[in-house]
Amino acid sequence: MIYLDNAATTKPSLTALSRAEEFITEKYFNPSAKYREGFSLQSELKTARSSLLSFIADSAAFEWIFTSCGTESDNQAIFGAARRGNAVTTAGEHSAVGAAFAELKLRGVETRVAPLNSDGSVNVDALLSLVDEKTTLVSVIHINNETGAVNDINAIAKKVKAKNPRAVFHSDGVQAYGKLPFRLAKEVDAYSVSAHKIGGLKGVGGLIKRKTLALPAYLIGGGQEGGKRSGTENTFGIMSFAYAAEEKFKTLKEDYERMQEYRELLWSLLDQEMFLRISSQNSSPYILSVSAKRLRGEILLHMAEDKGLLVGTGSACSSNAKNRYSKVILACGYDETTADGVLRLSFSPQTTKEEVEEAAKILNGIANELSQRMNI
Amino acid sequence: MIYLDNAATTKPSLTALSRAEEFITEKYFNPSAKYREGFSLQSELKTARSSLLSFIADSAAFEWIFTSCGTESDNQAIFGAARRGNAVTTAGEHSAVGAAFAELKLRGVETRVAPLNSDGSVNVDALLSLVDEKTTLVSVIHINNETGAVNDINAIAKKVKAKNPRAVFHSDGVQAYGKLPFRLAKEVDAYSVSAHKIGGLKGVGGLIKRKTLALPAYLIGGGQEGGKRSGTENTFGIMSFAYAAEEKFKTLKEDYERMQEYRELLWSLLDQEMFLRISSQNSSPYILSVSAKRLRGEILLHMAEDKGLLVGTGSACSSNAKNRYSKVILACGYDETTADGVLRLSFSPQTTKEEVEEAAKILNGIANELSQRMNI
Repeated sequence: MIYLDNAATTKPSLTALSRAEEFITEKYFNPSAKYREGFSLQSELKTARSSLLSFIADSAAFEWIFTSCGTESDNQAIFGAARRGNAVTTAGEHSAVGAAFAELKLRGVETRVAPLNSDGSVNVDALLSLVDEKTTLVSVIHINNETGAVNDINAIAKKVKAKNPRAVFHSDGVQAYGKLPFRLAKEVDAYSVSAHKIGGLKGVGGLIKRKTLALPAYLIGGGQEGGKRSGTENTFGIMSFAYAAEEKFKTLKEDYERMQEYRELLWSLLDQEMFLRISSQNSSPYILSVSAKRLRGEILLHMAEDKGLLVGTGSACSSNAKNRYSKVILACGYDETTADGVLRLSFSPQTTKEEVEEAAKILNGIANELSQRMNI
Repeated sequence: MIYLDNAATTKPSLTALSRAEEFITEKYFNPSAKYREGFSLQSELKTARSSLLSFIADSAAFEWIFTSCGTESDNQAIFGAARRGNAVTTAGEHSAVGAAFAELKLRGVETRVAPLNSDGSVNVDALLSLVDEKTTLVSVIHINNETGAVNDINAIAKKVKAKNPRAVFHSDGVQAYGKLPFRLAKEVDAYSVSAHKIGGLKGVGGLIKRKTLALPAYLIGGGQEGGKRSGTENTFGIMSFAYAAEEKFKTLKEDYERMQEYRELLWSLLDQEMFLRISSQNSSPYILSVSAKRLRGEILLHMAEDKGLLVGTGSACSSNAKNRYSKVILACGYDETTADGVLRLSFSPQTTKEEVEEAAKILNGIANELSQRMNI
C-alpha cells in the first residue's frame, strides 16, 4: 500500500514510541505526585518542552504548553485572545480556526475574513485592510492544509503589529512544524502544532506562546502546565512527540528538498491533460493538490484505494461537514467542478521515489478509466 | 516498590495496550479519512464508545463522547450547562470542577457550594437548599478523590430534579468508573470519566451525557464525535481505554470486595495510636485516607518513599496549588494539624495482600520514627 495522505496523519515513528515506552512500563506515575518519581517526570516534561520549542523559537521569548491536539491549541489561542472588538482571519483556515471564528461571531465578536490568492495563500493587502484599532486577534494559517500554500506569517505578523501593536497574532502551524525550515519571529504571539502530523501520536498538541502574552487557560483545573493547561499530562504521548520531533528536525532540510523533488516528479509524471495543478511551486513540498478535470475526486479516491494507493480529497478533518465542496478550494477562485475533482497527495520522509512513480501510474490509469466510463 | 497511589494514576494495562498496538502499527489512519480504512476506524470507535458506555449506562438514553481527560469532560459539562443563573456544587470537588466553578463566578454566574459531612460526602440537605428555580447546573463528585467518600449521585440527582427539573445534573465519576458497581439513573445528565485511573493511558477521557441534553461542544473544529468534540480522535488511547475497561469491569465486583478486605486489613494493621482514620466504612474501598497524628504527611510521604512505598497526600492534581492544607479535608471539619498529617493510600486490583501488610509495617515504622525524632 502506498500512503500519500500524510497531511491527514502520519504513521507513528516506532523508534520514537519505543524510546517513550518506559513512560508506560516504569515511569507511569502522575507527574503531579509529590514523591521523587513525580518530580523526575516534571523534569522530563520540562526537557521535552524546551527541546520541542528550541527547534523553531527562541526560548528566551517563547514558551511551550502541551495540549491534546492542534484544535485545542487553536481554540485556546482564539477564545483566549478574541474577547471583544473584531477578529481577523483568512478564508484558508483549518476548521479548528474556521469553526472557532464562527463561534466567536455567535459570542458577539465581529469576525472578518480575508480572501485568498489562487494558490490558497492569503491576500495580504486585503488582510491588512481588515485590521484596525479594534482588532484583538489575527489568525493566519502557516501552511494551508489543502493546497500546501505557505503564508509568510513572520512578515504578515510584523505588518499586523505595525497597524495595531495590541492585536494578538496567532498562526495554526500544524502542517509546518517539523516540515518547513522556519523560526518564529517575535511578532508572532501564538502558534499551534500537532504531534501526529510528524510521527507522534494522535492526542498530543502544543501551543507555543510569547512569554509576555497573557493568554487564559482553556482547560481549567489542577493547574498543570504552569496553570496554563489543566489535566494530567499525557506523558507517553508527550515524550514520543519530543522524540519524533527530534528525528524530524534532524533531517528537516534534506527531507524538505527531497519532498520538493518528489512533488515535482509526481506532477511531471501525471497526465496533464487529465489533471490541473492547484498547489503552486512555492507551496509546502509535502502537499501536491491537483484537480482531476471534470471528474469527481471522491470516486478517484476509492478507485485509487482499490489499486493500493491512499490519497486525500482535502482536509480529512472536515469530512463530517455537510458541504460537498471544499470552501478553501472555492476561495482560491476555482469553480465547483474543479473543487469536486480535487485530490490531495501528501508525503512524509518515509515516502520513496518508487512509491511516487507508482502513484502517478495509478492516478493516470484511474483518471483515464473514469473518463472513458463517463464518456468524457 | 509498593505503589499505593492508584487514585493519582494507575500503571497502564500492558494487555490492553498490546491489544491496541495495531492502531499504531497498521491502523494509524485518520478516522475522518474517506477511504475504507477511515470508515473502518469510525466503526471501531463506535464499538469502543458503546462498550465503554454499556458498562454503566443504558445506551438508549445515554451517549459517550471521547475527550482528552477528566478535566476536559468536567469543563465541557460545566461551561456548557452553567451559562446563567446560579450553579451549585460541593466543597468536596476535584479541582477540575472546583476551579471551573471559580471561573464561572468570574463570568457572572452565581456559584453556591454545599458543605461536607466529616467523611467528605456532601451534606445532601444543605445541597438541596441551595437549588432553586434559577439553578442551571448542579455538579456533585461521585467518589471524593481524597477521602473516597461516595455520594449517592442517583438519589441526589432525583432530588435535585424534583426541585428544579431544568437544572443540569453533572457528576465527576473519575474515581468511580471501573471501580464502583453502579449504573447511571436517568436523572444524571452528564458524567465524567478518565482512562488512566483504570489502566488506560493518560490523555483520554470520556463524557457520558443524556442524549436529549443539549450540551455545546467545548473543542470546536472539524466536528468529530458527532460535532460534540472536535480534534482528531486519539485512536490508540481510545482503544486501549476500551480494552482496559473491559478488563476492569470483568472482575469489578470481586475486585471491589477484595479492595474492601485490603482497606480494612491495612487499617487494622496500622498503629491506631499514630493514625486517625478519615475514610468512612462506606467510602470507596480503593481509597484509605488517614491522618498521622501531629505529623506532617509530606515528610512521611518522603520517608515512605525511601522504604519503597509510594503514597499520596491528597489529590495529586492539586500539588501545584499554593495551599498547604487540603481544602477538602478542612471542609470535612478537621483542623489544620489533622489536614497536615493526611496520607492517601489507594489500591488497584494489582495490589496484593503482601503489599498491604508490608505497607502497614512501613507506615507504622516511619510514623514512630518521625514521632521520636520530633519528641512527640
